[in-house]
Amino acid sequence: MTEKKKTTIVLFSGDYDKAMAAYIIANGAAAYDHEVTIFHTFWGLNALRKDEHISVKKGFMEKMFGKMMPRGADKLGLSKMNFAGFGPKMIKDIMKKHNAMSLPQLIEMAQEQEVKLVACTMTMDLLGLQQEELLESIEYAGVAAYLADAEEGNVNLFI
Amino acid sequence: MTEKKKTTIVLFSGDYDKAMAAYIIANGAAAYDHEVTIFHTFWGLNALRKDEHISVKKGFMEKMFGKMMPRGADKLGLSKMNFAGFGPKMIKDIMKKHNAMSLPQLIEMAQEQEVKLVACTMTMDLLGLQQEELLESIEYAGVAAYLADAEEGNVNLFI
Amino acid sequence: MTEKKKTTIVLFSGDYDKAMAAYIIANGAAAYDHEVTIFHTFWGLNALRKDEHISVKKGFMEKMFGKMMPRGADKLGLSKMNFAGFGPKMIKDIMKKHNAMSLPQLIEMAQEQEVKLVACTMTMDLLGLQQEELLESIEYAGVAAYLADAEEGNVNLFI
Repeated sequence: MTEKKKTTIVLFSGDYDKAMAAYIIANGAAAYDHEVTIFHTFWGLNALRKDEHISVKKGFMEKMFGKMMPRGADKLGLSKMNFAGFGPKMIKDIMKKHNAMSLPQLIEMAQEQEVKLVACTMTMDLLGLQQEELLESIEYAGVAAYLADAEEGNVNLFI
Repeated sequence: MTEKKKTTIVLFSGDYDKAMAAYIIANGAAAYDHEVTIFHTFWGLNALRKDEHISVKKGFMEKMFGKMMPRGADKLGLSKMNFAGFGPKMIKDIMKKHNAMSLPQLIEMAQEQEVKLVACTMTMDLLGLQQEELLESIEYAGVAAYLADAEEGNVNLFI
Repeated sequence: MTEKKKTTIVLFSGDYDKAMAAYIIANGAAAYDHEVTIFHTFWGLNALRKDEHISVKKGFMEKMFGKMMPRGADKLGLSKMNFAGFGPKMIKDIMKKHNAMSLPQLIEMAQEQEVKLVACTMTMDLLGLQQEELLESIEYAGVAAYLADAEEGNVNLFI
């Protein structure tokens, strides 16, 4: 019996382009029959937010963070040439023209391919994000679970 | 028969300092007899651009991207303390003073050491970059080729 | 005899949040009995600076870099939402409220757990940082030493 290869990605960044890179690699690895995990931490959690406002009870600081951070994959900015939000629009137009998948589509595809999407509970707590605000059918775990996946991994990336 | 160790780097970033780090690690690994691949994607492709203007037929958006992005390794900015372009000049002056290799020299050395330089065709397409605009003797491939290298890799990095 | 698993992190970034992520993973891995190395290079060296001014002889450029770069882990900015230095204060307040460890505490814990903290001598030289300016009981090495650790590593990250 041969074991499946493993790909484990920490998605720390909340940039549209970096999240795209993470999900393109993850979907590719899943297509090649890897067991794939994306561990979302810090700003990378924003890619998992639902795009509507969810009413949950929060302290003042947590509310402020919640308001300032992008609500969902479609709202993320670019790591380069963001141009006050104009850059992502350009990238999205050009992606549509080239029939490339958008980030929300890449996330959906990852879920269909059974890529394990994990939200880091410690940083959710710090940024005041609650489970009701994040996408359905994701998992919740901490650094121990990440390391258990990563230490057996063939491809480990921090993005 | 022992197999060669493998180092595979995704160069996503288009920052001078990050590209330097990637090429220093790559050249080091090649010197220790690793099989080394740098897979250039997104802004990392700019490190492979020729520094002169190359006349190719492009759509409007692709032309704009082409104009806005730095043309070649020597034109990249810094990830920190860029100071409207003054930072890279400082770094380059100080590198010259310390006899450190510049990024274009590091790339040349990598080519001499047979580091495999790959340009990601999917993001070339997105950013409107064409083969004529990139350095000679690089390879063109997609995420599948990257994964085939990375899954056997000893050192896998995303920079 | 089973060998210890190895985690090797390149800390290139000088952002408070990214350094936190690096040290949280490092401390987690050490707790799971990995042999852990953090190799600090470029801006990541600033996390190892002592917070007081150390008087050492430097050239003009090196002095300027020394003044402009943050002096120690507590002074680092955020990779996102830095808001002219207000962001780190918010994060630190919220960390205190949640009883999360600060970056200087995470570094101390790493030292207690015998995580190997390495400063990259080549980039120290470039940025004009001298051993007197950095924390006690760290090691000094170059890319060759990094690769020797990383090529046997189970988890290799570039942060």
